[in-house]
Amino acid sequence: MISVVVIGSGNVANHLILAFCENKSIDLVQVYSRKTSLFPDCLPVSKITHDLSNLAQADVYIIAVSDNAIAEISSKLPFENRLVVHTSGSMPIDILDKKNHRGVFYPLQTFSKETKIKFSQVPICIEATNDKDLETLHELASKVVKNTYTISSEQRKSLHVAAVFVCNFVNHLYKIGNDICVEKYVPFEILKPLIEETANKINFLSPSQAQTGPAKRNDTKTIEEHLNSLTNENQKEIYKLLTQSIINHG
Amino acid sequence: MISVVVIGSGNVANHLILAFCENKSIDLVQVYSRKTSLFPDCLPVSKITHDLSNLAQADVYIIAVSDNAIAEISSKLPFENRLVVHTSGSMPIDILDKKNHRGVFYPLQTFSKETKIKFSQVPICIEATNDKDLETLHELASKVVKNTYTISSEQRKSLHVAAVFVCNFVNHLYKIGNDICVEKYVPFEILKPLIEETANKINFLSPSQAQTGPAKRNDTKTIEEHLNSLTNENQKEIYKLLTQSIINHG
Repeated sequence: MISVVVIGSGNVANHLILAFCENKSIDLVQVYSRKTSLFPDCLPVSKITHDLSNLAQADVYIIAVSDNAIAEISSKLPFENRLVVHTSGSMPIDILDKKNHRGVFYPLQTFSKETKIKFSQVPICIEATNDKDLETLHELASKVVKNTYTISSEQRKSLHVAAVFVCNFVNHLYKIGNDICVEKYVPFEILKPLIEETANKINFLSPSQAQTGPAKRNDTKTIEEHLNSLTNENQKEIYKLLTQSIINHG
Repeated sequence: MISVVVIGSGNVANHLILAFCENKSIDLVQVYSRKTSLFPDCLPVSKITHDLSNLAQADVYIIAVSDNAIAEISSKLPFENRLVVHTSGSMPIDILDKKNHRGVFYPLQTFSKETKIKFSQVPICIEATNDKDLETLHELASKVVKNTYTISSEQRKSLHVAAVFVCNFVNHLYKIGNDICVEKYVPFEILKPLIEETANKINFLSPSQAQTGPAKRNDTKTIEEHLNSLTNENQKEIYKLLTQSIINHG
């Protein structure tokens, strides 16, 4: 049995709490939240504390708070030489206070309150400063998810940038697609099977192999017609840059 | 029973042939191909012709060839006053020769030989010049797919541009994510559940509501760190433009 304290009450904290609650071989001993918060109802109220000085003993302390609050919380912990990890994609391991063993436990997924995800499918990227801690984090992660990866702080930073491209920027292209449809009274629904298949395809082909479209074919006539039909300057600029990028590097 | 002749032997033609073969209430009477081609084995060799002057009688003739061959093929058809449609997203209805009734039968999906798709999930956008033809096309489409939409040539053109954003450009962002991972020896696999969830999310939220990430939060510190960590000038330029677009219009 591995015991855990979760520090935080945001989306990541709540998804972890839910995953830990549901697992009989994990002892979620306590959850710390600065102020009164909403938690999954599997969490008994008796396990919630708002007082850092009151933290219980555990094998792992998971700090799941916003990036700019990690350093402060970790320095305020009233104990030493325990395993303390954060859950951030962009913060290095050494943002954590040195008085404790440091580690990272980063679930790579886009979490939002409105949509439910299969947590077991979320990859967890772990990092620690020694083999024993790495093993503890691996044991904990593999109880709740299928795939765990040991990733250095430098790699994690690149992974986070890559995630911005394949998630945040991709979603923005969905938004532009939606805007174009709305302008012409075309239901955006029509594009959803295409969006799904585009994401699905890279399970079978590399993104390079999966590339299709006028830029890939260097079909300058269609490209020109598309640019003429776009009335929004920002959309035009994005169309040009991404088309050129596919032609040169795609 | 509705009878169809398919003209063409590319990806779209083959997906249509397969869908028509499998449907008992459609009579696929003939397939024309300029030269010897590969066809699904549900198609009897006796139904294949390489001679346009030999085309059989049918309710609908579907020209599924590359955009720049549609006009020529349609003008070479050795009959008049029959219903002839093309399958292109970017060509207007009037690219077809006037001697026949004209229409469009556009399945909006990314087709490739390597991956199998559920054809019934593909939306088909139809267009015709009179109600009777529209009804015929609607009847044919709804026998093989779940969702059929009546879309004008102008709307279809915008839909095609939108499809470039949500499919071709999105796939290129997957490719950049892959490149960043490869450079740091990080397995691209880690990003696949994120890619899947990003596509899945817009079934429940609008793209605007689903937007997350440093640009959405206007987190200039993270944005700057990401830009510093990118070594590729093209990636940097795309990062900057899409970040600015999310900040201004996201």
